[in-house]
Amino acid sequence: MFHPVLPRGREDRTVLVSGRGCTVRDTEGRTYLDASSVLGLTQIGHGREEIAQAAAEQMRTLGHFHTWGTISNDKAIRLAARLTDLAPQGLQRVYFTSGGGEGVEIALRMARYFHHRTGSPERTWILSRRTAYHGIGYGSGTVSGSPAYQDGFGPVLPHVHHLTPPDPYHAELYDGEDVTEYCLRELARTIDEIGPGRIAAMIGEPVMGAGGAVVPPPDYWPRVAALLRSHGILLILDEVVTAFGRTGTWFAAEHFGVTPDLLVTAKGITSGYVPHGAVLLTEEVADAVNGETGFPIGFTYTGHPTACAVALANLDIIEREGLLENAVKVGDHLAGRLAALRGLPAVGDVRQLGMMLAVELVSDKTARTPLPGGTLGVVDALREDAGVIVRATPRSLVLNPALVMDRATADEVADGLDSVLRRLAPDGRIGAAPRRG
Amino acid sequence: MFHPVLPRGREDRTVLVSGRGCTVRDTEGRTYLDASSVLGLTQIGHGREEIAQAAAEQMRTLGHFHTWGTISNDKAIRLAARLTDLAPQGLQRVYFTSGGGEGVEIALRMARYFHHRTGSPERTWILSRRTAYHGIGYGSGTVSGSPAYQDGFGPVLPHVHHLTPPDPYHAELYDGEDVTEYCLRELARTIDEIGPGRIAAMIGEPVMGAGGAVVPPPDYWPRVAALLRSHGILLILDEVVTAFGRTGTWFAAEHFGVTPDLLVTAKGITSGYVPHGAVLLTEEVADAVNGETGFPIGFTYTGHPTACAVALANLDIIEREGLLENAVKVGDHLAGRLAALRGLPAVGDVRQLGMMLAVELVSDKTARTPLPGGTLGVVDALREDAGVIVRATPRSLVLNPALVMDRATADEVADGLDSVLRRLAPDGRIGAAPRRG
Repeated sequence: MFHPVLPRGREDRTVLVSGRGCTVRDTEGRTYLDASSVLGLTQIGHGREEIAQAAAEQMRTLGHFHTWGTISNDKAIRLAARLTDLAPQGLQRVYFTSGGGEGVEIALRMARYFHHRTGSPERTWILSRRTAYHGIGYGSGTVSGSPAYQDGFGPVLPHVHHLTPPDPYHAELYDGEDVTEYCLRELARTIDEIGPGRIAAMIGEPVMGAGGAVVPPPDYWPRVAALLRSHGILLILDEVVTAFGRTGTWFAAEHFGVTPDLLVTAKGITSGYVPHGAVLLTEEVADAVNGETGFPIGFTYTGHPTACAVALANLDIIEREGLLENAVKVGDHLAGRLAALRGLPAVGDVRQLGMMLAVELVSDKTARTPLPGGTLGVVDALREDAGVIVRATPRSLVLNPALVMDRATADEVADGLDSVLRRLAPDGRIGAAPRRG
Repeated sequence: MFHPVLPRGREDRTVLVSGRGCTVRDTEGRTYLDASSVLGLTQIGHGREEIAQAAAEQMRTLGHFHTWGTISNDKAIRLAARLTDLAPQGLQRVYFTSGGGEGVEIALRMARYFHHRTGSPERTWILSRRTAYHGIGYGSGTVSGSPAYQDGFGPVLPHVHHLTPPDPYHAELYDGEDVTEYCLRELARTIDEIGPGRIAAMIGEPVMGAGGAVVPPPDYWPRVAALLRSHGILLILDEVVTAFGRTGTWFAAEHFGVTPDLLVTAKGITSGYVPHGAVLLTEEVADAVNGETGFPIGFTYTGHPTACAVALANLDIIEREGLLENAVKVGDHLAGRLAALRGLPAVGDVRQLGMMLAVELVSDKTARTPLPGGTLGVVDALREDAGVIVRATPRSLVLNPALVMDRATADEVADGLDSVLRRLAPDGRIGAAPRRG
């Protein structure tokens, strides 16, 4: 079996076999606190009987059919209606996918196709941001900001430009200027340089996920959205991580008061029990890309009845158990606990919105430089010494707990981080651990 | 809800609510024979209790975890071992995806990355074929042959070249030459023109699926594979449709005696009950792309335990019920019945390998020109008048029955096609139907 980001020849494995709530267990009987909810998606926690029953019932009834042409199914129709009820005003149409990367590919294609069908075929450029993460397909991976997704894989998708992300902790990026002012000035200049009539869309995560739970200043998105609109440039929000309660609201767009033209979701839509996703779009975009002949491309699994049935059951649980409220309450509590780590020598920043949290590790608090060896060693130590699974980005530990996590479990997560980060030196070395009980 | 290939404003829908075996039922209580097994993937038929139980059991136990880094799970390990046992010799590593399009994106990236990491970074060109179908992401959709996936979506992925597909029925494509000779000469010339040291890989479906069940001459693939190998160009076989018994063998590569460097699967791996896929690769490719630092990209759902558990149960059923043998037996029978339609004025060709079948419709049998209005009207008539669901390509009706279909049901499918195609004129008009009972 081939594992992403695993060096050739490394043989040790943690083989997980079961999970319940926020806990997973491996073949050796060891348990771990899953503070990442896999990769920021298991909103309702592991091992939910209600989901198993919804899936089995749908598989017995109609496991799968496509929704091409005039073919439809009852579960996809119900989920589409449910999503448009929850979505920011104006997003009234739903294109189903099997995940976030597929959704970004479709959103990029729709943005270009929209202009192609509305008389501006020369609008092909896509604006994105450095350190953005949007997936690893050739479209989604090109708009992603990290060179790791592009170096050695090229030539990649043409007509993509990356802007500076709004990252308040990294004041050094903005030449002493206000973050939003700097970003807006750069955006305006870029639009001017490429030419407003050649730009199809800008894509961005409302809160950057894999970039490390980076929350922009409150005025960033409203001002970006206004500037784009004034130039006829579409706004695509990538809410693959941020939607379905992750930030304490159904969609993170609500925090910033912006409505995009296209909004990409996945992950939390089914809590990961079945791969699924949805691209929400305005009537205006949908009508234009459909045209007289229909939008020419679709996926095998678009409108997958089982995935839709699982999504409906998952949304029921999120609503019934008040998980948006819990995400705010426990997220705030956990953030409070982690804030206490700021005094440690290798902890640069602690960030949070709802159940999106990150601890940025630094070798120098003033220069805000990353640990020389990256964060993977810290993630390994957290798992092996403290039994806590978090996600690594090059600079940060990312925590995306399940929205069902309670306060006591959040305290255990914080205790685990405390015990390891207390032993972490700014050179990246980790002091000897007390043996795990 | 947004439907692919549905013109703006068209309001009629067939809302499917249940299915069993090869039959599906809509909200009006009408039943249809699903002769396309959705889109060529429901090998074991609809409504299988065993799959529902396997999925529910895994969701209760561990619905999802990723397999990044050293993290693994028991179901993914078991499925990887099972797949490498079934696969053509030499394909010993498995990279899991959630579908065929994702698999193609990864295979294209791995092919380029392989050369990047083995000292030939200038090998970036990908060869494909016109009328190929490989998906709709920006990578997979660029190697797909139809301009419909590219026009208005550009600029698309650079360094992709499309060759002439081997399509024995369309003798007019080959200037009177033998199909394989023509294609090989074109391939050799193309390699020479681009430069062998600049080509990463060639990708192709062993039997073209969405292109219309196009079976190449037996010497095509062995000669293509040998020529590529002599130039150090990797061969990627896209077996998303053809694998897992669709052509009567586990992999269609077995028919042609070729072993690719990468082989992409999806669809039939789970019979569509959960979106899933796998890219099989050689040790040589895996080791090179891993290198000292690991392959830098992965999917959220890679190694999805529930998808893997469902795949294992699905492969059990295919094996236990002898579905490879049934695919040959019933496929041959259905092909025999359809061959009798060749005498009808608008039927140009009937093709088949196992449970991949196509009926190519023509307005002129000598010129082999397509119906002026395409095939969608025929597909609608088959569904509405005869209760048979088949798939439309621009030139052909594609039939991909479930591998569980029995002879009597195949006869019903053939009767349905007979009743509609008998009324089809070469100008595309369909005569009045007797009302369906």
